[in-house]
Amino acid sequence: MDRSATATPATDPCNTLAETRDRFCIPEGVRYFDGNSLGLMPKVVQLHASNVITHEWGAGLIHSWHDAQWRTLPQRTGAKIAALIGAKAHQVVACDSTSVNLFKVLVSAVRLRADRKKIVTDSDAFPTDLYIVEQVARLFDLTVVAVPAREIERHLDGEVAAVVLTHVDYRSAEIYDMRGYTQRAHDVGALIVWDLSHTAGAVPCDLDGSGADFAVGCGYKYLNGGPGAPAYLYVAERHADACEQPLAGWFGHARPFDFAQQYTPASGAARFLCGTNPVIGLSVLARALDIFEGVSLSEIRSRSTQLTGLFIEGVDSHLSAHGFALASPRDAARRGSHVSLRHPHGYGVMQELAKRKFIGDFRMPDYMRFGFAPLYNTQDDVHALIDTLDQIMTTRAWDKPEYQQRRDFT
Amino acid sequence: MDRSATATPATDPCNTLAETRDRFCIPEGVRYFDGNSLGLMPKVVQLHASNVITHEWGAGLIHSWHDAQWRTLPQRTGAKIAALIGAKAHQVVACDSTSVNLFKVLVSAVRLRADRKKIVTDSDAFPTDLYIVEQVARLFDLTVVAVPAREIERHLDGEVAAVVLTHVDYRSAEIYDMRGYTQRAHDVGALIVWDLSHTAGAVPCDLDGSGADFAVGCGYKYLNGGPGAPAYLYVAERHADACEQPLAGWFGHARPFDFAQQYTPASGAARFLCGTNPVIGLSVLARALDIFEGVSLSEIRSRSTQLTGLFIEGVDSHLSAHGFALASPRDAARRGSHVSLRHPHGYGVMQELAKRKFIGDFRMPDYMRFGFAPLYNTQDDVHALIDTLDQIMTTRAWDKPEYQQRRDFT
Repeated sequence: MDRSATATPATDPCNTLAETRDRFCIPEGVRYFDGNSLGLMPKVVQLHASNVITHEWGAGLIHSWHDAQWRTLPQRTGAKIAALIGAKAHQVVACDSTSVNLFKVLVSAVRLRADRKKIVTDSDAFPTDLYIVEQVARLFDLTVVAVPAREIERHLDGEVAAVVLTHVDYRSAEIYDMRGYTQRAHDVGALIVWDLSHTAGAVPCDLDGSGADFAVGCGYKYLNGGPGAPAYLYVAERHADACEQPLAGWFGHARPFDFAQQYTPASGAARFLCGTNPVIGLSVLARALDIFEGVSLSEIRSRSTQLTGLFIEGVDSHLSAHGFALASPRDAARRGSHVSLRHPHGYGVMQELAKRKFIGDFRMPDYMRFGFAPLYNTQDDVHALIDTLDQIMTTRAWDKPEYQQRRDFT
Repeated sequence: MDRSATATPATDPCNTLAETRDRFCIPEGVRYFDGNSLGLMPKVVQLHASNVITHEWGAGLIHSWHDAQWRTLPQRTGAKIAALIGAKAHQVVACDSTSVNLFKVLVSAVRLRADRKKIVTDSDAFPTDLYIVEQVARLFDLTVVAVPAREIERHLDGEVAAVVLTHVDYRSAEIYDMRGYTQRAHDVGALIVWDLSHTAGAVPCDLDGSGADFAVGCGYKYLNGGPGAPAYLYVAERHADACEQPLAGWFGHARPFDFAQQYTPASGAARFLCGTNPVIGLSVLARALDIFEGVSLSEIRSRSTQLTGLFIEGVDSHLSAHGFALASPRDAARRGSHVSLRHPHGYGVMQELAKRKFIGDFRMPDYMRFGFAPLYNTQDDVHALIDTLDQIMTTRAWDKPEYQQRRDFT
């Protein structure tokens, strides 16, 4: 690739974020484009996890519920996430998985709109969201209207209890207008639940400013909380104390340590907690989130669009002969922090890239996803990726017998 | 205390388990009687967690889903727990929290008995179980009959869909007859769900042999999985493929990586998985469980009853003047692995014990709980505890102003 067409690493203008890259463990020789699936490991979590295990658990034992403040970890971790998604700190708690949290908030939403008959959602949402929507609909005898996101508007009417929509699409990276969809849901009296899994940490959003009702998201992508990190949920303060969530475990009780037979929900987002929370996982996530401290969200966004834009530019100028179809918006304003290409040989290409330590991922049927994490990816990463893709296509290196058998998570 | 009445440490006959004690980190000077709340840290988990974080996550990144077999952690961890609770390996998965798992299996149970109107449960169960039972009842328009465990039998009739019962009571340590209650539930056509939180790892039970339908339990007590460790659930194989659980997330799908819009449940217990599972927490729990390898369950049980029996004997012979009331069964066969005493000044006594590094816990309103974990507690622990209790009572050391304000988890 002729790099004169774009910027060279030496003149990388994004260097205000350069320092955050140093805070991650980047394996020797690896070019990582999968922060949208599993974020890199922040160096600081190694020591922190070791401290939590050895000192807080091993030495502090049950006293650490108080002395190490384990009890408030969901709230303290939630507060750090809140700062990234346009929410006041007390409206977010970190706990459970995204799927479990979606169940909790969606049941709460349909109970707040008990006279209504439908849930409208994006038929291209990440499947687990669709499955959970189906389950909630079944429990409350509601109809699910699953249509492509841009058709949602025409299905909104006075029968709709809730809209469930992902802010940044997991395949295309398309950003859906949070304020617009929220307004249109509210116009018909419906509530809206946003999935921010591909948003938080890479794409700024403004839950409070948009008037959103509920949100959920995962902790292991751009938040770098580690594999299967706890997820989070947001509930607008105007709803919180009216919510009746079905996974009413003891940590959601107003006074869990009274061991009362009768459930009295805690005030605010804390009522969405359920069982005993995963202390080690929450501690790692909370520590990982400290990397965002002092980094402005606009800086993050600007680095993200610069990297994704540079990649699209490179695809256009250097890979056009190889038959890649861009499956992400060209308009930077509508694009999240990853770029998807479609190609009939996409699976083999991703395998060959992985062999060369360029790690992205593949989503059925033919999506090649490349995540550009603003905290650690660089323009140099983009150039190297374009060069390598060009080489793989030119030499047909994707065409190997071992790439016929699909393997998950690669 | 006159130790000649019982065994001395030098002649401790329980030494076949002595070696397992060495596998735990026991803080200097601490006598730990709270393995029934949070198990001690197995030494081996420090290195293991560090390896999972640094190598599997930090270096292996997403490839570890395959290369480190993260994907099958719920099943592999479940198989280790299965061996402790009388279950075939494939009937148990480790995931989520006990409360979330109870919700999943109880909804499944009432759906299998859709024509029935009641859930019967123990009014003295750990509160989170009661709260979840209430939520399930509300969703399915069922009546909850919450009565003391020994009255359950008289409430069993053809209207009962499910019985939810804890095998070992969290306050009294009373063991409820698994085979008997299961049989009586089945006699009226009901299903039974057992909570094994205070059972697994300390009290043998036989889920398969008893004909139990479902079970749940936590990973952080006698299983030593660490604070907020993942929980587990059991489903009898005869039910598994008929179960429809409401938290049908993508990891419960037959082929999660097809990203299909339509939910097709996995076969067997795997259909009870929900979202992405907590890899670090599961890895720690799985490694902690290795301590049980090679230790027979009857040896564990025999050590447990010996320690609890010795403690009760010491209370009788040395503390009778101090007004303690035994709140656990005298009959060893009916007693789990902790002993509860009741005392009007119980909270102050536990605080003073903690100050002297004797750690037990307190449960409202006046229960002093002492857990005797068969893998690491010794007869010497018991003797020292009796001596120290005697001293505290004799000197009224529980009567300090700072013990007036109750603090949780102490």
